[in-house]
Amino acid sequence: MPALNMYTQEELQELYKLLSAEHRSYVEAGTHINMARGKPSPEQLSLSDDLLLLTKNDIGVTASDGTDCRNYGVLLGLPECRTLFGELFGVPSKNVIIGGVSSLSLMYDYISQCCTHGIGGYAPWIQDPDRKFIAIVPGYDRHFAIAQHFGLKMINVPMTNEGPDMDLVETIVRDPSVKGMFCVPKYSNPDGITYSERTVERIAAMKTAAPDFRVMWDEAYVVHDLYEEQDSLANAFALSVKYGNEDRFVAFASTSKITYAGAGVAALAASDRNIDEIAKRMTLQIISFDKINQLRHCAIFRTMDDIRAHMKKHAQLLRPKFDAVLTVLHRELDGLEIASFNSPRGGYFISLDVNVGSAKRVGSLCSECGLTLTGVGATFPYGVDPNDAKIRIAPSLPSVQELDTAANILCNAVKMAACEELLSNITVGR
Amino acid sequence: MPALNMYTQEELQELYKLLSAEHRSYVEAGTHINMARGKPSPEQLSLSDDLLLLTKNDIGVTASDGTDCRNYGVLLGLPECRTLFGELFGVPSKNVIIGGVSSLSLMYDYISQCCTHGIGGYAPWIQDPDRKFIAIVPGYDRHFAIAQHFGLKMINVPMTNEGPDMDLVETIVRDPSVKGMFCVPKYSNPDGITYSERTVERIAAMKTAAPDFRVMWDEAYVVHDLYEEQDSLANAFALSVKYGNEDRFVAFASTSKITYAGAGVAALAASDRNIDEIAKRMTLQIISFDKINQLRHCAIFRTMDDIRAHMKKHAQLLRPKFDAVLTVLHRELDGLEIASFNSPRGGYFISLDVNVGSAKRVGSLCSECGLTLTGVGATFPYGVDPNDAKIRIAPSLPSVQELDTAANILCNAVKMAACEELLSNITVGR
Repeated sequence: MPALNMYTQEELQELYKLLSAEHRSYVEAGTHINMARGKPSPEQLSLSDDLLLLTKNDIGVTASDGTDCRNYGVLLGLPECRTLFGELFGVPSKNVIIGGVSSLSLMYDYISQCCTHGIGGYAPWIQDPDRKFIAIVPGYDRHFAIAQHFGLKMINVPMTNEGPDMDLVETIVRDPSVKGMFCVPKYSNPDGITYSERTVERIAAMKTAAPDFRVMWDEAYVVHDLYEEQDSLANAFALSVKYGNEDRFVAFASTSKITYAGAGVAALAASDRNIDEIAKRMTLQIISFDKINQLRHCAIFRTMDDIRAHMKKHAQLLRPKFDAVLTVLHRELDGLEIASFNSPRGGYFISLDVNVGSAKRVGSLCSECGLTLTGVGATFPYGVDPNDAKIRIAPSLPSVQELDTAANILCNAVKMAACEELLSNITVGR
Repeated sequence: MPALNMYTQEELQELYKLLSAEHRSYVEAGTHINMARGKPSPEQLSLSDDLLLLTKNDIGVTASDGTDCRNYGVLLGLPECRTLFGELFGVPSKNVIIGGVSSLSLMYDYISQCCTHGIGGYAPWIQDPDRKFIAIVPGYDRHFAIAQHFGLKMINVPMTNEGPDMDLVETIVRDPSVKGMFCVPKYSNPDGITYSERTVERIAAMKTAAPDFRVMWDEAYVVHDLYEEQDSLANAFALSVKYGNEDRFVAFASTSKITYAGAGVAALAASDRNIDEIAKRMTLQIISFDKINQLRHCAIFRTMDDIRAHMKKHAQLLRPKFDAVLTVLHRELDGLEIASFNSPRGGYFISLDVNVGSAKRVGSLCSECGLTLTGVGATFPYGVDPNDAKIRIAPSLPSVQELDTAANILCNAVKMAACEELLSNITVGR
C-alpha cells in the first residue's frame, strides 16, 4: 500500500467512508474482547495443573532440609526453591529470597524500605524532598505507580532497540537525588526489547552520584521466549561485581506467568549485604512465606531445564496468538506509514506506535467496538504519554479468532484516526 | 507448702542444695526442649491435611463467582472466603479483605501506610516526630517490633484481668501524638486474658485526641478455645458504630493456627472507609493474593461451624499439654508465694510471673538445662521487662512428656532463683 499521506483528499474521504462503515459493523456486532492485561489463557494455566493434582501422598510435607512445610519457619525460603531461583537469576542460592505469590510485592516492599529506612547505611530516601527515579518509557504502569506512591519524581528516558538510552541515563544519574530505576531487561514491557550486553554492562559500570542508587531488575519475562531463536540477557550480578557495584541490582521474578498467575512463587536476588538488609526487615513483616506452595513448585520443577521445557509449552500456545495479531498488523498497516510495531521474540506484549496525538482516539474507537486495550498512556509515568502514540497489545488471553477480530478492529481504528488527522480541516462526524 | 519467705536461712540452704542437685541432674541429662514460640505440633498440622489431599478433581479451579482461581484478579479475596471471615469477625463480607498467608504482614502494611501516607485524610504519622503507640504489656513482641520499626514510641499500659488498664489508656489518648495500640483481645498473648465487654466498649467509646487513632485488633486466637467453657469477646465493630468511631478498629486474623502455620489464609476487617483506603494501597502492592489457597480453605471450611468443629480437635490435642504444665506448676509452686500463673481457657500461652528481678536468672538456669523459653523480656517493648518478672510458656509444640520435664526444670529454676534472692547475702556458686 502507498503511504497514506500520498492519498489525495478525495481518496482519503473515500477511504474514510469505507473505514467508518467497517467501524459501524464492528460496533453493531457487539464484540467484547479484553486485551488490557497480560493475563495467561486458561489453556496456559492448565499446563500447571499438576500443582492441583499432587497430593501429600506424592510430595509429602517435608523439604530437603527436613523442614515440615506446614509449620512456621525458614523465612528465606526452602533450600531447593532458593537453588532453583538461583539458577534462574544466575546467582548462588544464598543470594536468593523466596517470597509469597507476588514479585510486585517484593518490589513495593523494597522501595518502601529504601524510602522509610534507607539502605546500605544511607539516609531514608524520603528525607530527600527532591528524590527521583528514572522511568524508562514506555514501561510497566505498576512500576511507575510504586515510584509515584513514594513520591519519587519520574524522569522519562526513552527505550532504544538495545535498552534505555544509556547516554541519557549516565547523565541523569549525576544527580544525587536520582535514586534508581525500574528495568524489565528481557522482553521489556511493552516493547519486547532485551537489553544488549553493552547496555547491561553500562548500567553495572556507571558512576551514580547517589551511593544508594538501586536498579530494580524485574526479570518478569526471563524464561518467556516465544520462538526457538531466543534473546539472551547478560548476567547483571556478574557485571556489577566486575565494576565494584555489587549492591546496585536487586532482581525480581515470579512464576505467575510460568505456573498460576497470582498463585505462583515470587523471588528476589541481591548481594549479600542487600539480602541481609531485606531479611532483617522481613522478620518484622512475616514469620514465613507459604512453603507448601514452594514445595509443590519444586516438585514440578526440579531444575531450570524443567522450567525451560515447561515454557516451550507456553510458547506453543502463545505463538499463534502473537502471529495472528502480527499477520493482521502487517496486512493492514504495512506501507501506510501511519504506524509501526515490534515483533518480539518473547514476553507478553506487542507494542504499536501510531501517529503522534492519535493513540487516545484509537483507544476510543476500539472501545466503541467493544475492544478493551491497555489504557492509552498507561505505559508512561502518571498515565501520560507525551506523544499520545503508544498502544500496548496483550494477545495472551483472547482466542486466536478473537485476536484476528481484535487486530482488524484496531487496524481499522488506526487508519480512521490517521485519516481524521489528514482530513482535519474537514468536519468529521464523531 | 509454706511460703518460701517463712523458711529459716538453714532451711533455705538445705532446699537450695536439693534444688541445685536437681538442676545438675537436668543439665547432665542433656535435654533439648524448645518452648519459645507458639508453634503448632505436627499432630495439629495433620488435622488440616485435607488441604494437601484435595485435588482439582475434588474442588475444581473455579470460585463461587465463576473466577478461575489460577489467574490474576479478585484483589480483595474470593466471595466465599470473605463471607467466611466476615462471620469470624462479625462484619459483613464487604468489610473483609483476604490477604496472603500472614496477618502480621497485613498489620505491618497498615502501620506502614499510616506512617508514610496517613489515613482518613490526616497527615502521615511520620510527620509527627513525637508519634507514639500504646503498648499493652505484656504483649506480642512482633507487634512491638513493628511499632519500633516505624519510630512509634511505646508507652506501657499494664494488663488487668479484663484487658488493658482503661483508666490509663483513656488518659494517654488525650495526647494527639498517641496514634493507636495493638490489642490481642481474646486469649491475649501471653496472659490468655479476654477483654471484658466493658473494656471493649470503653475502647470503642473513648475520646482520642488523635482523630486518626487506630486500634490494631489482632484476633489471633479468636476461635482457639481449649475447653467447653469458652471466653466470649464483644463485637468491637458494633460497639464502635454505636459511638460514632467506626473507623477506629482494624481487625486481623489468620488460619495459621487453624490450618497450616505460615501457609494458611490471613484476613482483615475494617470500616467501609478503611477498606477503601487499604484496597487502594493494595493495588500498588499486588495484583491478587493466592486464590488457590483460598479455594482450598473454603473447600474444607464452608461455614464457621466447620471451623469450630475443627478447633475442637485442636483443643483435644492442646488441652493435655496445657494441663501437663499447669499440673506441675501447681504441684511445685502453690503456696510458696514466689510465682503466680494463669490458667487460660484458650490461646497458646501460659504466663508465669516470678519474683521481681529474677526472670532472667530463671531463663538462664533453664537454658543451662537445655530448655529454651521465649526470650525473657520479649513480651515487653524494646525487649525490656521493667520488672524482670514475666516468663511466657508455649506448650503447643513439645510432647506431654517433654512438657512434664520442661515444667519441672522451670519450677526448679524458679525455686532456685527465689532461694538465691532470699539467700542473697550468701555467696552463691553460679
